Amino acid sequence: MATLILLRHGQSTYNQENRFTGWVDVDLTPTGYEEAEKAGKLLKEAGLTPDIVLTSVLKRCIYTTDTVLRVLDRSWVPVEKSWRLNERHYGGLSGLNKAETAERFGPEQVKIWRRSYDVQPPRTSDEDHQRLMADPRYKDLRSTDVPYTEALADVLVRVMPYWETRIEPLLQDEQVVLVSAHGNSLRAMVKFLESIPDDEIVGYEIANGEPIVYELDQDNKVISKTVL
Amino acid sequence: MATLILLRHGQSTYNQENRFTGWVDVDLTPTGYEEAEKAGKLLKEAGLTPDIVLTSVLKRCIYTTDTVLRVLDRSWVPVEKSWRLNERHYGGLSGLNKAETAERFGPEQVKIWRRSYDVQPPRTSDEDHQRLMADPRYKDLRSTDVPYTEALADVLVRVMPYWETRIEPLLQDEQVVLVSAHGNSLRAMVKFLESIPDDEIVGYEIANGEPIVYELDQDNKVISKTVL
Repeated sequence: MATLILLRHGQSTYNQENRFTGWVDVDLTPTGYEEAEKAGKLLKEAGLTPDIVLTSVLKRCIYTTDTVLRVLDRSWVPVEKSWRLNERHYGGLSGLNKAETAERFGPEQVKIWRRSYDVQPPRTSDEDHQRLMADPRYKDLRSTDVPYTEALADVLVRVMPYWETRIEPLLQDEQVVLVSAHGNSLRAMVKFLESIPDDEIVGYEIANGEPIVYELDQDNKVISKTVL
Repeated sequence: MATLILLRHGQSTYNQENRFTGWVDVDLTPTGYEEAEKAGKLLKEAGLTPDIVLTSVLKRCIYTTDTVLRVLDRSWVPVEKSWRLNERHYGGLSGLNKAETAERFGPEQVKIWRRSYDVQPPRTSDEDHQRLMADPRYKDLRSTDVPYTEALADVLVRVMPYWETRIEPLLQDEQVVLVSAHGNSLRAMVKFLESIPDDEIVGYEIANGEPIVYELDQDNKVISKTVL
């Protein structure tokens, strides 16, 4: 039997300012660090000790991971970072205040972008895309892998190869795997694990710092699910 | 040309209490965190941006690494942890206050243990060795790899395979490699890089939080050395 723990990072400065974040690399707020610490305590109380942590290349997840491992006194476990676990790229909305965006594009349009499975927000500018391509953490990616914008459907497309090549083998090896990631990269996994339809997954809320624990059988089918 | 940065962790609680530390997993002191932060600033000012960090499985190094990367705003770089970079195992002296040890064994004997290249301190107890073997971070090691005690010569024996199989290939790939480790695992590398004789390397001091920067040629021969 394998154990998979999904954890969304603590509150970020952009969460607090109600901005679309996506691939913008913002820090946690003090509340975010507290949430990460609480997540660590919940895992500790539940006797859950990760053998490995998989996280994104964005600091709100990495700092959440560092904080959780420190609480568990397991900072020595391997931590692997992959862009494939990054948040959904919000395209031209990245960094915009959600209220301002609603004023500009209309609340209905914004709701569609936020809550549809496969409608992409407007593309980011070529300038912003170039800037992302020049970021050393993305230098080994194919230019087609660096998004201009993403719908949740696009996030699944980049998360699933990582699921199959990295996460599944670890689970089959009966490791306790902690995936410390973002609302939408985690939704992609929840959708797959629980076979949630397209129109329902977009409304599935994952709270900051609340670990979701799956027990999986040998075929990685869900035996049980617990939100701590 | 390759760049290798060697960094000893900041002051630990045992450094402060003047105790033999070795594989005992103690935290940094507030001064230790400040030293780590200063090390990050020194690297930043020197324009040195690690592509990868190699560190031990002991928290004083891992927390030093986390702090340095945060200052550099490069927490996304891969961090790999290996027991081979651990501090010299101080055997039966581990955890003992250095003054007490001198009283018990005589200052001359302690000086020999601290400053000879190949004289091992007394072996740790079987009970302490069993405890180490049961630590999940060492569970994949052969029992012969988990030390009862180590001289600096023994540290070289376990560091060199890691140097050859992991560090050298990264340097040959022209990566900027930061090794965030301990006084004696770093001495092992300094000895090798600078061909320092056995009786001289034991007196070679590496200060907490002071990065040593080597530029190396294609054959990993030292072109220049700078202490920041």
